[in-house]
Amino acid sequence: MCVLGLGLIGGSLMRAAAAAGREVFGYNRSVEAVAAAKVDGFDATENLDEALRRAAERDALIVLAVPVPALRHLLEHIRDAAPACPLTDVTSVKGAVLDEVREVGLLPNFVGGHPMAGTAHSGWSAGYAELFTGAPWVVSVDDHVDARVWTLVAQLALDCHAVVVPARSDEHDAAAATISHLPHLFAETLAVIAGEVPLAFALAAGSFRDGTRVAATAPDLVRAMCEANADQLLPTLEQAIDRLTRARDTLAATGSVADLVETGHAARMRYDSFSRPEIITTVVGDGNWRAELAAAGRAGGVIRSAQPVLGNQGRSRQSPP
Amino acid sequence: MCVLGLGLIGGSLMRAAAAAGREVFGYNRSVEAVAAAKVDGFDATENLDEALRRAAERDALIVLAVPVPALRHLLEHIRDAAPACPLTDVTSVKGAVLDEVREVGLLPNFVGGHPMAGTAHSGWSAGYAELFTGAPWVVSVDDHVDARVWTLVAQLALDCHAVVVPARSDEHDAAAATISHLPHLFAETLAVIAGEVPLAFALAAGSFRDGTRVAATAPDLVRAMCEANADQLLPTLEQAIDRLTRARDTLAATGSVADLVETGHAARMRYDSFSRPEIITTVVGDGNWRAELAAAGRAGGVIRSAQPVLGNQGRSRQSPP
Repeated sequence: MCVLGLGLIGGSLMRAAAAAGREVFGYNRSVEAVAAAKVDGFDATENLDEALRRAAERDALIVLAVPVPALRHLLEHIRDAAPACPLTDVTSVKGAVLDEVREVGLLPNFVGGHPMAGTAHSGWSAGYAELFTGAPWVVSVDDHVDARVWTLVAQLALDCHAVVVPARSDEHDAAAATISHLPHLFAETLAVIAGEVPLAFALAAGSFRDGTRVAATAPDLVRAMCEANADQLLPTLEQAIDRLTRARDTLAATGSVADLVETGHAARMRYDSFSRPEIITTVVGDGNWRAELAAAGRAGGVIRSAQPVLGNQGRSRQSPP
Repeated sequence: MCVLGLGLIGGSLMRAAAAAGREVFGYNRSVEAVAAAKVDGFDATENLDEALRRAAERDALIVLAVPVPALRHLLEHIRDAAPACPLTDVTSVKGAVLDEVREVGLLPNFVGGHPMAGTAHSGWSAGYAELFTGAPWVVSVDDHVDARVWTLVAQLALDCHAVVVPARSDEHDAAAATISHLPHLFAETLAVIAGEVPLAFALAAGSFRDGTRVAATAPDLVRAMCEANADQLLPTLEQAIDRLTRARDTLAATGSVADLVETGHAARMRYDSFSRPEIITTVVGDGNWRAELAAAGRAGGVIRSAQPVLGNQGRSRQSPP
């Protein structure tokens, strides 16, 4: 497999895939990241066309591991040099990536992916093989997806010790707006507001540290994901502002925040008891498999081991290049 | 010393004070909590007047460790049974407590306190002696505070291995609104909004878990602290809504969240590099000591060992009852 982009996610993916025994090579545009990867014993180059020629020769799975704004440049090179390779990504926004892939004509080979893992650090040196262990890894089941490519991508996630959550790109993005992009904007807001009050940093403890942890993420990365998901983030942000405004109005009028606090606590309790049943009955490629997997993922279902594939009912553990 | 209320904070305080070699006894209105404390080897009673008579006989430091709504009842009993005892509290809102104490006429003996420590759990069984280790513990330096009582309260915090942050009650409350009460309301809001979106809980990872952790706190405790600090929380909430509204408007108009994200990141970086110089030059009771300590606390200063006291320049380590 071929990883394009060797930052936190791409670099961790390279390490995790290598640890799983896969043959993996990578590209990064910066000489420094490539040098660092090589020092750590990995096969990396800053020559994009060389990486893509090699991927084309081996029909390697290509993984896009760059922020959304950098995608177009890579996709155009892939279209020219490796148009038949199976293709996935690890980007936090799926709709915007789908649009880019569609526009360059690579949709038939593409299955979007998103490992829900990260740290506040970035770059090759921040990566590690265990980043994905136990994390949900969305593998998209949009209408166009091909069963063979889907299986390759799901196997990559499993090789990285993630659990696969099948989901449609649009549903992923609506969910990501609420569980990732809004939390980032809330964290930034908390940091800004406390930063303006004398004594606040002096007293800050657990709830502030937790609530602002992701504000330490590089601003460009936060912007890239929030801005690429603006269509879903805007209504989510609107709802949040509305909830907070109602809480403020009620607090001012009656002295109570009961409604927000009790509803919030109940929701958090539901989250704590949310179960993750294993998806085991769907045969990939068979009948209505995409809709079946989307429904199972929506209900909390996850895939923990390779799924049966139409025409190959055995559970394959072979690792493709 | 006498601890009134044996929940998470009062119960932890009893354990920490006992571990520091102090003589400590406690009261709780529930027979179950008292029984649990006794089983764990502590001196506890559900008879408030008995506890207060004992405190009065020994001139013990009385610690109010109940939520704001329960304060008045205790304060009236203290006024009747132990009006001369030095008095402090461990409540997360200082202005509301000050008002209550003033109204029952106990202000001269009172120095407010607030250990910035907690967990999402509550009750005697959730407490532990190390809860306060390394935590900032606000000891108020309002205009009325008496040097002797101030020193007793600061020594209690140090005995519990906390660091003392001297602060005025009004400044504490403004800061607490930004670093504790607003984070709680944000956490509740995140939980509510994600709870309404299919797939959100299935994908939730680090940023959601961190951002909603405090939504697991008992709703009554969250309400008690937010509602008791409504005067400070309302303008803070207003600012937060305003920031988020501007971010939404800019995202809708220009596709960018740069302003919020970059300002938030910069504020969080300032927090990470915030230093905590040790306060060593102020003599408690001498001249302008309250204003000096308030200024030092505002600048991040903390007290890590007993301060010199006017008329007793040695650093006393004796533990009063």
